[in-house]
Formats: sequence, C-alpha cells, structure tokens
Amino acid sequence: MDIIYLDNNATTRVDQEVVQEMLPYFHELYGNPSSMHSFGGEVGNKIAEAREQTARLLGAEPEEIIFTSCGTESDSTAIWSALQSQPDKKHIVTSRVEHPAVKNLFEHLSQKGYRVTFVPVDAKGRLDRDYFFDSLTEDTALVSLMWANNETGVIFPIQELAEKVKEKGILFHSDAVQAAGKIPVDMNTVQADMLSVSGHKIHAPKGVAALYVRKGTKFSPFLIGGHQERGRRGGTENTAQIIGFGKACELALSRLKSGQQNIRKLRDHLEQSILSGISKVMVNGETGNRLPNTSSISFEFIEGESILLMLDKFGICASSGSACTSGSLEPSHVLRAMGVPYTAAHGSIRFSLSHYTTRKEIDYVLQKLPPIIERLRTMSPFWAEYQKACSVA
Amino acid sequence: MDIIYLDNNATTRVDQEVVQEMLPYFHELYGNPSSMHSFGGEVGNKIAEAREQTARLLGAEPEEIIFTSCGTESDSTAIWSALQSQPDKKHIVTSRVEHPAVKNLFEHLSQKGYRVTFVPVDAKGRLDRDYFFDSLTEDTALVSLMWANNETGVIFPIQELAEKVKEKGILFHSDAVQAAGKIPVDMNTVQADMLSVSGHKIHAPKGVAALYVRKGTKFSPFLIGGHQERGRRGGTENTAQIIGFGKACELALSRLKSGQQNIRKLRDHLEQSILSGISKVMVNGETGNRLPNTSSISFEFIEGESILLMLDKFGICASSGSACTSGSLEPSHVLRAMGVPYTAAHGSIRFSLSHYTTRKEIDYVLQKLPPIIERLRTMSPFWAEYQKACSVA
Repeated sequence: MDIIYLDNNATTRVDQEVVQEMLPYFHELYGNPSSMHSFGGEVGNKIAEAREQTARLLGAEPEEIIFTSCGTESDSTAIWSALQSQPDKKHIVTSRVEHPAVKNLFEHLSQKGYRVTFVPVDAKGRLDRDYFFDSLTEDTALVSLMWANNETGVIFPIQELAEKVKEKGILFHSDAVQAAGKIPVDMNTVQADMLSVSGHKIHAPKGVAALYVRKGTKFSPFLIGGHQERGRRGGTENTAQIIGFGKACELALSRLKSGQQNIRKLRDHLEQSILSGISKVMVNGETGNRLPNTSSISFEFIEGESILLMLDKFGICASSGSACTSGSLEPSHVLRAMGVPYTAAHGSIRFSLSHYTTRKEIDYVLQKLPPIIERLRTMSPFWAEYQKACSVA
Repeated sequence: MDIIYLDNNATTRVDQEVVQEMLPYFHELYGNPSSMHSFGGEVGNKIAEAREQTARLLGAEPEEIIFTSCGTESDSTAIWSALQSQPDKKHIVTSRVEHPAVKNLFEHLSQKGYRVTFVPVDAKGRLDRDYFFDSLTEDTALVSLMWANNETGVIFPIQELAEKVKEKGILFHSDAVQAAGKIPVDMNTVQADMLSVSGHKIHAPKGVAALYVRKGTKFSPFLIGGHQERGRRGGTENTAQIIGFGKACELALSRLKSGQQNIRKLRDHLEQSILSGISKVMVNGETGNRLPNTSSISFEFIEGESILLMLDKFGICASSGSACTSGSLEPSHVLRAMGVPYTAAHGSIRFSLSHYTTRKEIDYVLQKLPPIIERLRTMSPFWAEYQKACSVA
C-alpha cells in the first residue's frame, strides 16, 4: 500500500541527496575525525563543511554550531548550561505549550529548587505577553520559548521577545526544531543566545541535531568527555549523520522561498475543504500566523486516536499531537493550555505536510476523511447527545 | 592509496551488512516509532529486534538496554543516574586510566562537591586492589571502572571487582566500550549494575551506543523529554543507527569465538616482529591479559606523533593514544599512570586491529616501520645522547 505521509512534524523522509552524501562515510571514509592520520582528517574537513551549511541556514557562524544527537539533547544542553553558568539564579521561564523536551525538563527542575514560570497562552495559542514580561526578575536565569509550536504550528514572535528579554540581561533560548527550514530563522536579526534545531524534521536522518550558541555566551558542556566540538560536547562525532544534516540544511535553505508556498497552498486546500465539508470542525491556533505545513483540526465528539486508526487503514499517516507524548490517553497539553474544550481536544488531528506532499495525496485524504468522521460520529454517544440537543433546540 | 587501518580502537569501518540493514530506514521506512500509525509501528518492531540483538551480545534482557547517542552519553547517564538516585552519598571511585568520558566527568564532579578517588594502577596497568577496596566507604555512591583499556587493551577483572563492590551494596558501572565484541561480556556472570557499550567500535556507525541497566536498578534519566526508551531517554529514536547497531551486535557475537583468534595471531605477529626487529622498544601493559586486537608500543627517544605522520604517508593509520585526547601535546594519562618513562610515553603508538586486518597489511607495516624509526632516531637529540652514553659505557 502506498503511504500518504502527513506526519512531517513527527519526522520526515530522508532526502535521497542526503543519503547519497552520507553513504561514503559508513564503509569507505569511516575514519575518526579526531584522529591524527589524514584518513580521519578528511572526515574532519567534511564535518567542517556540514557545520558551514548548518550555520548558513540559521544566519550563524560555523563556530556557533554544536552538533548534538537530537533536539532533546540540544534543549537540555542549553538549559543546563544556562543554569550552570549562573549558579545563583533560581528562576526560569517558559510557556505552557512547549515540546516535552523543554516542558518535562522544566517540571523536573521545579522539583530541584528552581522556581519555574509557565507562561499561559490564549485561545489562539498566542503567548500572554503581560504575564510573560511581568514574570521576568533579576533572579531569572533563562527564558526558553519555542519558535513554532509542533502541534498547531503557531509562531511566537521570537525576534521581539528575545530583544526585550536581552534588554534585561537574561539568557534567551529558543527551541526552533519545528521552525528551522520551514520559515526564516536568522540569528543575525534575532537576539537569542541559544537555539535548538533538529535534522530529522528537515529530511536529514534521526539522531542528529544542533545547538546554536551565540559567540561570547558563557557555556558549560552537558556531555563532558573528549575535546570534540571544541570542548563543548564530548563523544565521537556522528560523522555520517552530521554530513547528512549539513546537506539537508543546504536543501532546506534553497527550498525556503519557493517550496514553502507550495506546501502552504496544499495545507490550505486540505483545511478549507475539511472546514467546508464536515460539520463541527475547528482549526486550532492563530491561523494567520502558523507554519505553512501544519494544520491542527478538532473533530468534535469523537476520538482522535480512532480517526488515526481508520486513516491508517488507507495508508494515511497523521498524528493526534506530538509523537513524543503519544501512547498517553491525556489530550494534548498544548490544546488544553489554549482552552480547547475537552470534547474537541480529544478529537484533534495534526496534519503536517512536506515538500513531498502532492495535490493527489491531499485529494485522496479529502475523499477518505469525511466518511470516517461520519462513521465514528454515528458510534459516538457524545455526538448522539449533541444531535438530540440540536433537534430539541 | 590503499589505507591500512590499524586504528580500530578509535573507530571501525561499518560492515556492509550493517549498512544494508540501515538503508531502508532512511528513505523508505522513515516513520517515527512513537507514532500511532502502522508506518511508524513497523519501525518500532525493528527497533525491538535491535534491542534483542544488543541484549544478546551482553547476556542481558532487552528491557535492560537503553539506546543512547555515544559511549560518552552512556557513561554520563550511568554516573549522573547513580548520583541522582543517592543524593546523600558524596564519594565516587574510578581508576586513573579511564577514558576521558569517565575521567573528565569525575574531575568535573570533584569540583562540584564530590569526593573522588582515582585508584592507581601498576606498571603493567593493573588496578591496585588494596587501594581500591580500602577506598570504598558507606558514603560511596558509585564505582566506575573500565572493562578494557582503550590504549593498552589491559583488561580489569570486572567480574571479581563487581562482585566485591556489590557485596558492599555500592552501585557498579563499567565502561565496556572497548571490551564488548572483542572479549566475552556477559551480564549473567558479572554483577555490574550498569554497563556502557558503543556501536562504532564494533562496525556499527558512529552516533549510536547503549547503556545496560540491570533490572531493579534505580534509574534517573539524563535526557529528560519524551517517553522514549520506556521513559529513560527522551529524544526521537535514532532508528537507522539503532537498527545497524543491533546487526553489528549480532555479527560481533558470531565472530567472538573464531574471529578474535585470528586477530590475536596477527597482533602477536606484528608485536613480536617489532620487538625483535627494532631496539629500545617496549610493549605497554600486562601483555598476557589484553584485548586480542590491541598493541601499545613505545619507541624510545622519538615522538609518537612523528611516527604517525610518517606512517600516514604510506597510508598506515595508527594512533598515539585515544582519539579523544589527540591534538594535545601531553603524553597519554594512561601511560603516565603506569609510570612509563617520559621518553617512552612520548614515543608510544597504539595499533588496533579488526577482523578486516590481513596478514599482508601487517607485513607491509613491518616493512615500512623500521626505516621510519631509524630515520626519526637519527634526527633525535635524545637518541644521540643515549648512543653516546652507550658508547662511553
């Protein structure tokens, strides 16, 4: 069965060009870049190139890039480094809609003597600015705010927020794992001190990511060991994946202008057709200020998981939220923070497209989805109740 | 130029079979194993298989395996977990010859309020048992000892040491990165609570490793985030590499019996020929109790780095110690801990073989090496002094 893959915020297909770039570094050029011999040195040169490619996507300098193993490691590294370098400050700030990589670490830190502010968002997923700025104090060690939300695609105004936070001399980190490669992320115009990005969201393989650390930022390594990454991350370099990541960054940069417009058109087509064709449906988040590839849609009175299972039978891959929280029966913490009603949050589906997505695929989904929703609603006691209430009214 | 790769303790060539196993998981089966859809689930099943293969190499249960990104992360995870789970204990014990992944973290911890014992070794690289056992107290949170040394190949008696440490109720971790796949490492017969192994030392790619955590061991995650690895390591699974690692473990297990004998023969041939053909040469470490693939040889009165550069011109890859410490002009901390004289430690070379190594390659090295040593010695003031002293005597 052909797969219709609309779960690109969970992970993406690795580009063939990226695979080709990686292949020689498994079996032929397998040296350790830290080795003295030129066989290892050759690999080191290629990693330097990948570092330049990665830096270019982010408007950064190569020496501001630290390669890590995943977005979670990048986030952890940034957060622990901020705390290590300012041992006297005990307050940290984030939002209520962060990815588990930040959210769960902040919750852990709240049990380790840190005062943690989780800034609320409104019904559209927009940060409560007054609450946010009021929370900042002289004791604040770090602000960590995601650039774009993984579930709704809603974009925080990172440029403006970072500027104001930096005016107060507070360290600013952004989890840009979902933003990088989908919208411009340029560290020349944004004052963030640290920024996390991940390979497997932009058609590089899983298992490689980067942390941007602005020149001059006090830094404390998370993985203490060898001298790799200029002493900022111990552990033998993940050479093939890093090289693939660099290539994927280059491709992402080249696609940023034209490619995303096409994705946006397909997303809007999917969304508008669902909104006009199915009743009691809502799009979650500030629709005019979202990632071009993401659509979080709530189908009221039914279970998102059931929709997914039925889509799965047709080879259609989507998600009920973050892959990192799936398996849990709780509705998404993001939608709850936005105040999405329980019956709608439970029936929410995230469609996330990529430049591989075609019009034909979207039309196939639009053909299969309405009968699925209808069928599930005929089985739903909540829907029956709602219908009854309507007929009474 | 053909490469003669004798630096397998730094990293290894990825087996073609391993690459083949990984390939589909980049471009075809690229789903996220945490996703709800069966496209992701398929990847999850393959990871479960890799976990079984990895467990089998170590005589462990699959659920005792946590996949990580590198040996350094495995070591860090074990050490931080031991400290987190016993917040009242402030003493930790290791040896003076550990890999930087353990050594540097222990040095860091010594500045963070921990009392650290670095147990000495003798001239053969053997652990000072009296010193070791005397150091253990009720305040000891963790003992971390490497299974086999990365520079000399010397094997610590982990089975016996772990047993005695466990009698005292102290957590025991072993960095088995160099041992696994080269000698039997069986957690059924060794009482260690935690054990680090790494993929790229056994013909899997760089960027994947594992931490064994014995069932029932109190564990605290190092990477806090999503629910991956049963809540023990956040971050999207590094699917292709994990699958490759599993295959490499299967291959390593199958080669453990016969393959290592062949490697040992070649290593001994190399070593004996050097010892008999070149003067003022010594083999470092307890020669009868070493990894079968490793030979650390000191060529007195010359610089190891110069030997490496000249070998490099013939395509011969070796090392002057750990790749994780190269670039530094200090002689190896391992050889210094063993009391190897300065003039010998500086001229030490590590040859590390693999099952790819051939007799022809070793003979080529034996042809090229003696003139290199002779030439470097004619340029060495220390050698001139030594010759003068000899002639006077």
